[in-house]
Amino acid sequence: MKKLVIAYSGGLDTSYCAVSLSKAGYEVHAISVNTGGFTKEEIKTIESNAYKMGVSTYKNIDAVTSYYQKVIKYLIFGNVLKNNTYPLSVSAERIIQAIEIIEYAKSINAKYIAHGSTGAGNDQVRFDMIFQTLAPDIEIITPIRDQQLSRQEEIEYLKANGIDLSWEKAQYSINKGLWGTSVGGAETLTSEQPLPESAYPSQLKKDGEEKVALTFLKGELIAINGIKKAPDVNIETLNDLASAYAIGRDIHVGDTIVGIKGRVGFEAAAALIIVKAHHLLEKHTLTKWQLQHKDYLSNFYGMHLHEGQYLDPVMRDMEAFLESSQEKVTGDVVVTLKPYHFNLDGISSKHDLMSTKFGSYGEENKGWTAEEAKGFIKIVGNQNKIYQQVNNNS
Amino acid sequence: MKKLVIAYSGGLDTSYCAVSLSKAGYEVHAISVNTGGFTKEEIKTIESNAYKMGVSTYKNIDAVTSYYQKVIKYLIFGNVLKNNTYPLSVSAERIIQAIEIIEYAKSINAKYIAHGSTGAGNDQVRFDMIFQTLAPDIEIITPIRDQQLSRQEEIEYLKANGIDLSWEKAQYSINKGLWGTSVGGAETLTSEQPLPESAYPSQLKKDGEEKVALTFLKGELIAINGIKKAPDVNIETLNDLASAYAIGRDIHVGDTIVGIKGRVGFEAAAALIIVKAHHLLEKHTLTKWQLQHKDYLSNFYGMHLHEGQYLDPVMRDMEAFLESSQEKVTGDVVVTLKPYHFNLDGISSKHDLMSTKFGSYGEENKGWTAEEAKGFIKIVGNQNKIYQQVNNNS
Amino acid sequence: MKKLVIAYSGGLDTSYCAVSLSKAGYEVHAISVNTGGFTKEEIKTIESNAYKMGVSTYKNIDAVTSYYQKVIKYLIFGNVLKNNTYPLSVSAERIIQAIEIIEYAKSINAKYIAHGSTGAGNDQVRFDMIFQTLAPDIEIITPIRDQQLSRQEEIEYLKANGIDLSWEKAQYSINKGLWGTSVGGAETLTSEQPLPESAYPSQLKKDGEEKVALTFLKGELIAINGIKKAPDVNIETLNDLASAYAIGRDIHVGDTIVGIKGRVGFEAAAALIIVKAHHLLEKHTLTKWQLQHKDYLSNFYGMHLHEGQYLDPVMRDMEAFLESSQEKVTGDVVVTLKPYHFNLDGISSKHDLMSTKFGSYGEENKGWTAEEAKGFIKIVGNQNKIYQQVNNNS
Amino acid sequence: MKKLVIAYSGGLDTSYCAVSLSKAGYEVHAISVNTGGFTKEEIKTIESNAYKMGVSTYKNIDAVTSYYQKVIKYLIFGNVLKNNTYPLSVSAERIIQAIEIIEYAKSINAKYIAHGSTGAGNDQVRFDMIFQTLAPDIEIITPIRDQQLSRQEEIEYLKANGIDLSWEKAQYSINKGLWGTSVGGAETLTSEQPLPESAYPSQLKKDGEEKVALTFLKGELIAINGIKKAPDVNIETLNDLASAYAIGRDIHVGDTIVGIKGRVGFEAAAALIIVKAHHLLEKHTLTKWQLQHKDYLSNFYGMHLHEGQYLDPVMRDMEAFLESSQEKVTGDVVVTLKPYHFNLDGISSKHDLMSTKFGSYGEENKGWTAEEAKGFIKIVGNQNKIYQQVNNNS
Repeated sequence: MKKLVIAYSGGLDTSYCAVSLSKAGYEVHAISVNTGGFTKEEIKTIESNAYKMGVSTYKNIDAVTSYYQKVIKYLIFGNVLKNNTYPLSVSAERIIQAIEIIEYAKSINAKYIAHGSTGAGNDQVRFDMIFQTLAPDIEIITPIRDQQLSRQEEIEYLKANGIDLSWEKAQYSINKGLWGTSVGGAETLTSEQPLPESAYPSQLKKDGEEKVALTFLKGELIAINGIKKAPDVNIETLNDLASAYAIGRDIHVGDTIVGIKGRVGFEAAAALIIVKAHHLLEKHTLTKWQLQHKDYLSNFYGMHLHEGQYLDPVMRDMEAFLESSQEKVTGDVVVTLKPYHFNLDGISSKHDLMSTKFGSYGEENKGWTAEEAKGFIKIVGNQNKIYQQVNNNS
Repeated sequence: MKKLVIAYSGGLDTSYCAVSLSKAGYEVHAISVNTGGFTKEEIKTIESNAYKMGVSTYKNIDAVTSYYQKVIKYLIFGNVLKNNTYPLSVSAERIIQAIEIIEYAKSINAKYIAHGSTGAGNDQVRFDMIFQTLAPDIEIITPIRDQQLSRQEEIEYLKANGIDLSWEKAQYSINKGLWGTSVGGAETLTSEQPLPESAYPSQLKKDGEEKVALTFLKGELIAINGIKKAPDVNIETLNDLASAYAIGRDIHVGDTIVGIKGRVGFEAAAALIIVKAHHLLEKHTLTKWQLQHKDYLSNFYGMHLHEGQYLDPVMRDMEAFLESSQEKVTGDVVVTLKPYHFNLDGISSKHDLMSTKFGSYGEENKGWTAEEAKGFIKIVGNQNKIYQQVNNNS
Repeated sequence: MKKLVIAYSGGLDTSYCAVSLSKAGYEVHAISVNTGGFTKEEIKTIESNAYKMGVSTYKNIDAVTSYYQKVIKYLIFGNVLKNNTYPLSVSAERIIQAIEIIEYAKSINAKYIAHGSTGAGNDQVRFDMIFQTLAPDIEIITPIRDQQLSRQEEIEYLKANGIDLSWEKAQYSINKGLWGTSVGGAETLTSEQPLPESAYPSQLKKDGEEKVALTFLKGELIAINGIKKAPDVNIETLNDLASAYAIGRDIHVGDTIVGIKGRVGFEAAAALIIVKAHHLLEKHTLTKWQLQHKDYLSNFYGMHLHEGQYLDPVMRDMEAFLESSQEKVTGDVVVTLKPYHFNLDGISSKHDLMSTKFGSYGEENKGWTAEEAKGFIKIVGNQNKIYQQVNNNS
Repeated sequence: MKKLVIAYSGGLDTSYCAVSLSKAGYEVHAISVNTGGFTKEEIKTIESNAYKMGVSTYKNIDAVTSYYQKVIKYLIFGNVLKNNTYPLSVSAERIIQAIEIIEYAKSINAKYIAHGSTGAGNDQVRFDMIFQTLAPDIEIITPIRDQQLSRQEEIEYLKANGIDLSWEKAQYSINKGLWGTSVGGAETLTSEQPLPESAYPSQLKKDGEEKVALTFLKGELIAINGIKKAPDVNIETLNDLASAYAIGRDIHVGDTIVGIKGRVGFEAAAALIIVKAHHLLEKHTLTKWQLQHKDYLSNFYGMHLHEGQYLDPVMRDMEAFLESSQEKVTGDVVVTLKPYHFNLDGISSKHDLMSTKFGSYGEENKGWTAEEAKGFIKIVGNQNKIYQQVNNNS
């Protein structure tokens, strides 16, 4: 029998795929990859529904730690916010999901792999590219992209096959994961309108303010308020803390892989706080040139990741740079959470280059004399002076 | 007589310089350059005090428009925030002040130029470099840097010379200008402590929220809420509007030109709102590669400007790039002001590349078929596939 | 009748297209675009052959000057050599050819446009992208790509239609243009083998050596040996001079737009000499940061051009930077031509920043004292010193 | 007694320093660091002369391997040629010499360190910065920089102290090392004149041509013509082979650390051949984005190294990137040596991405269909098309 693995979310599209591929004679193995978006109850529901669709097996792969280790860690090291806004929540997840699914397909010797993406967006590119690269002999099957059915047609097909679940279309399409939740639809299809407050998954629950201490070790978030846990657990904890203040909402407008502009709302309290806090710690502990060259590489790291090029070996080279740069990024950052926003209070680190041992900036400095400063300026300014003199007399 | 121009702020240091240089036999011409920080009353006070110091003439040069045209405009085009935080308010001002003062000195044929910077910081570098480059024959005199007197010594010298003003040391050193106000001292000399709310010049005056429409023409802010004014006037207007919400406060930690880290608070409501709004408009109207390469150049534009390299001709080359990139950055951005923060609602522009004429992202797209999408992905993924196959079989 | 413009080279592929499209009922207008590769005799032969293929009209567009103005000029300003080797001769030509042809098609109101590229390479991408962008309503027809006939099948088809020319396959496929000649086939299909000397179009004709003086004005080559001509004429003259020494041969290995590696021989005497001479003049006249940032932009300018992205507005922004950077790139460069290679002797320019007015490097310098040098070094080294001390004691 | 280490070359300047510091009561320990420029005879002569100058001890540190491991290796990985010309021979050597000398001074607990550089150039910056960073408590003494004596004054001082060696000034100042030999003086002090052939250390000894096979393993040159040796030995071997053809001569014009332009001749046969051969191997084995981002980093790696910033931790981060990128840079490159120049014949590597398994570029490709190519082009061109349509209708 033709063994097939399907990336199964439990939504209408992948349910349609599961049923129609089973009917078409495939032995269907449904896989969901948990990158931080599933509760145990949700997994149970998805599983029981999956079997209603006629799949042979269902499996939920817990990829939260792998997601952190393979991608999020480097997004933090690089302070990556696409177009200075978006933590790449969804882009990053798809990569890990694709890798986990294709590895599973190889492990059970499947000859076919299916996903439910349309032909319009980014996700098909990420899935297909990673599938084709890691398993060039496995055939990719994409009923949604190929058949372009309407929701109504899909629902009727399912009904005709005895599946009568409620498939209400949510007002917003929500994608939840460890590194953030995206919110698309309605207003995000325009350029003008912001999302209403109610569209965001977290609602303001707390007033006042609250201080949180984040402890980093070589760039990784190893403790919150002094309690040590694994970094991916800390991200969840921080998300819970900060979501109560409705922090981390924004709308991203960016270039899709297919060349058109896309707009999507998101809520990513932990991601935004961690990136900003980590960046502040770096400003204290890295040299000027480390900060400068990290910016160049991180900007491209985000672009390549977003465009599904995670398997390009240049990504490993960049990760080597980023990892090296974190050697001294160790210390505490205190953040104040407030309704809808947060402040960075300051940092303490034994690697702090603002160490008062060398005098505080702006105060009279013991490190050099007035004459030395003048010598410095004279020579630093040499080229501009020469340029001006050569070119004004000519 | 030895004609000398002094950059005169009216503070203790430059007052000491003015008196002691007059006594030393120089014909002292005091100049203040207004880059947006002075009220008319302040100018009057400074002027009358200047004459008490024995200067021959006093002049306040209004450089607000020149400041905008020569620097701020490009900081907006480039969305420049140093280390992703600081709008370079003070760095940018010093450049313009130095240029205005040295041009004035040349115009009156002065042979000497004096400033009151110490030998510890950035400002001496900016002043000296620009003076030396634009007027290599004018001698620079820097009593504060050279003599390293204490405040008390300066005050006593002034008293001994009949000047008995009140020279209380403010708790914070404040520098106000069109592109922002810096706040230094006390907490900013540590790495850990945030500034107290009271240290910021603007205090929260309004609750609730308020929408503001910003109109850009080729990257320049030409109107606020539909009222057209010169861009530098619009910056002031927006500052007034947004300061009532205590927007735009943050603390910058960065590399000084002299190689040590410096930390400074700032409040720059208009600068932050404009940069973010302008950037959003660009995300809608520029191509992916325009956004990417602008980032590289802008990052360095900020670094060079910060380090006093404004006269390096590479700055003109970068400005040419930035100016060219603004051709289509025209449209409206709506911003919502709230206490302590703001949101970008959205934009409208006839150059919006997210134009619905070409289908909305995420919706089924009329622009290409499933087969075309597959062809695209297959070829886009070629190199990674080849790399994997070559290197897994070897 | 269905009006169609065909990019016609006179080779087997485009001849097949011309005949079969005429037979299929199109009114065929054949166009060749001269970017420096055609002699008058060749044009005559192509024209007379074209009419044998049944075309309605034939036209050879002289695009040499336009080619120089729109592309080559900026390749010189940027010292662009792809992967530090290849002057992008063919990539650049295709862009101009595509633009000229589509503009012609629009001018005669054609509804169809045809080219003879296969589906395997770069050229189809450049042609299609530019056609689609500049004339989205004109349909692109590509018989060679679509039908994938063998040479023999094409020859037989032509014979059957009364065309009995000699269609010997040359050992190497040669593409000649103003900015260089490419040589592909046989050895270039391997990774190991160099091209034999005989494969290159120019053979060594002169021994000994010969000095040539190149005069640049704002980056453009305005005279050779003191004789002023238009830059595109100078390129041809220099090519004639230098080809006699068999200068400018090399093999390029690079990434094609379709993701595979390609290898091609080329001979581009003028291009290589001009780029190197121009770069030398820049090293004398530009500042360190101009040289550094030009490198970044030029590297990407070459990549985008190579990949057919000439119409991306970022190319105009980069050109603005490059143009601005050439303000002082004026002066003479003397080059010595020798068999198979050349040397740059030196330059003279009134904008030379190595001007002896400021002391020669390495000689005792009058510009600053030992104390000033020490002050400079002390402060330039500050950050590394602080870093070492903070991190060694911690 | 005051223990002092001096960087001693045996030339007039350092001899003057050795004598005068001994006379001044220092216990002088003379050190030469061999970075590839010394023969055994030269070391003997230097040693015996050193003792004539009154030094307590003399030591020649063999740093050839350390030089390769700490710097040259990364210059090869990065294909670093400053301003696309100069292999940074001297800049790189000074770094290693400074590190070796200061480590020696620390090991013998010296309180003083002396070098013979003037105040005019780059070397003082490299020496001082590395000394100050690695040993902030050791005092730097620089008699040549401080006293600015003429050669004649130095010679007379030495004579008066019983040292009567012959101190003829060579016509050219030569600096020889593993990575190349620099040649300065006379013509290099002008912008116009090339060095005469006789100024170069190696003279043409062979006619005809000779093939050399270079074997790289992860970017390192591990064998020449099949004979395995340590990379630094291979560099010397290749230098001997290629110098017979007078290969690798050129003149570099660049920005010194002190802001003026400097011009220097050099001969670096092995460096140029290795960099070019290594780069060719990379073009076959690295992805497009590896090549692109390597260029950015390598360009800056060269700049920072040249400017003495070797100890900035960003250099370690860049080295991590470069090292990672070499994973597959393994294979053979065949080079043909000819009088005054060389050609790269081609490469063979099991990591060659131009592998014929995937079809040769330009030949009809089995990897994708015409329809897939069209789909690719359509979507790759999307943004330019949208841009054009949005902005032409507006």
